Amino acid sequence: MKKTIPGKVYLVGAGPGDPELLTLKAHALIREADAIFHDDLVSPAILALADSRAVVVNVGKRCGTKKISQLEINLLLIDCARKGWTVVRLKSGDPGIFGRLAEERDAMQNASIPYEIVPGVTTGLAAAASLGISLTDRRTSSRIVIVSAHRAPENEQQAPTDWHGLAAVNSTLIFYMPGRDFASLQQELLGAGLDIETPAAIVSAASTPQQREHHTTLGRLDRVPSMPAPSILLIGQTIGRTRQAGTDPVSLTSEPSIEGVEVSVAASS
Amino acid sequence: MKKTIPGKVYLVGAGPGDPELLTLKAHALIREADAIFHDDLVSPAILALADSRAVVVNVGKRCGTKKISQLEINLLLIDCARKGWTVVRLKSGDPGIFGRLAEERDAMQNASIPYEIVPGVTTGLAAAASLGISLTDRRTSSRIVIVSAHRAPENEQQAPTDWHGLAAVNSTLIFYMPGRDFASLQQELLGAGLDIETPAAIVSAASTPQQREHHTTLGRLDRVPSMPAPSILLIGQTIGRTRQAGTDPVSLTSEPSIEGVEVSVAASS
Repeated sequence: MKKTIPGKVYLVGAGPGDPELLTLKAHALIREADAIFHDDLVSPAILALADSRAVVVNVGKRCGTKKISQLEINLLLIDCARKGWTVVRLKSGDPGIFGRLAEERDAMQNASIPYEIVPGVTTGLAAAASLGISLTDRRTSSRIVIVSAHRAPENEQQAPTDWHGLAAVNSTLIFYMPGRDFASLQQELLGAGLDIETPAAIVSAASTPQQREHHTTLGRLDRVPSMPAPSILLIGQTIGRTRQAGTDPVSLTSEPSIEGVEVSVAASS
Repeated sequence: MKKTIPGKVYLVGAGPGDPELLTLKAHALIREADAIFHDDLVSPAILALADSRAVVVNVGKRCGTKKISQLEINLLLIDCARKGWTVVRLKSGDPGIFGRLAEERDAMQNASIPYEIVPGVTTGLAAAASLGISLTDRRTSSRIVIVSAHRAPENEQQAPTDWHGLAAVNSTLIFYMPGRDFASLQQELLGAGLDIETPAAIVSAASTPQQREHHTTLGRLDRVPSMPAPSILLIGQTIGRTRQAGTDPVSLTSEPSIEGVEVSVAASS
């Protein structure tokens, strides 16, 4: 895998888990990469796309158990790029959302390593899509707030969570890494003024064959059954408006008439 | 294109514009579709992927000029699905974000038409990635707020924008359809308490060959040159931390040593 041209590091979103939700760009890079450094949450079906000669390393830090430090990850990326390799740093979802992208980007800049960020389908959006949820709705929801309920030990010096900013009635809240302490989350949101009947849904392993979901309300959030990580918690008026129709059997009966609409057949070249 | 099986409507995210940022699933559906009903913002390069026999219809409502009503779009989708067709309703970015997905989903449910929502790379995330921005950063930014600055006439009965909820120091704000009245946006955010030095960036035509970007601060937002729609406005501490290194020339010099890290070559089968 020695190459004469300088290598490059691609900081790539792997999407929520379903390989079909990879971007074409991510798919091509995973297949072409000389080395892939991936998070724990990247699915085996996606890693199976890698070239059989590629170096594939799990550098995940799931549930706080560090197998490898951020500094070590940075040095690995730099080291492989300096070999002239195509290096893929593969993160679940979108790399810019709770992905520690900034540290790795800064390390590449400081080491003068060429890099490129490849956005992906972030897991919260895939979770909503799988339930048939529109995150915005002209009737109820004009704002989306993406927030993490998980606090790593090193984050404790951060400002406390602004719960009132989360309690706007027209917002859809997407909690990444919501953990298991839904009772505490519930109390904070109720205390901030969010209505007890606000619909909520938890989606575990979104977009994968293991996906499970649970529909509830803010008032019953403390009674949600335990579901496997990773999961996404959605809260907002728009959550309650539908279930995914999916492939339910349908009856095809009357032919609607469409007046005033002219459908032209356009060549797509 | 007559088929004996019932048709299905796919409500599909086309991503930000670059065909390489389509998901594999969207790419396959666009190629297989019997009919594609797309927004104005879906790029010609993506529409060129459609089968030459497919019906391809622009049902966009850009800048408030309605060529076709939402009811008419719903009826077209239903009509084509009842012919047994594979119907793709193609929306730029992710369909669940400012895409009027809810209305079309409800129409499919009410007409008992099978449907599926296919998430996509939403344009705000692609805009950030193209600038080398991590939307969250453990050091500065723990929350992302996605909001539209555009108010369609039919939206005026909505609650007024909660500007204070947008002014949390640790939030990254992503404005979709920010329009051209940045002076008003600036005054609202300053009035809500956001710091005048907060970094901001505007990205026009993100991910396409026409992409342009402009870096500024909240205090200078009223002096941003006019840029072609569609554009995305990003505001937050994390915006100012970098520029994309991209393919700048680099010097490859010293070989770093990586201690305590064992890199195993794993077969990827």
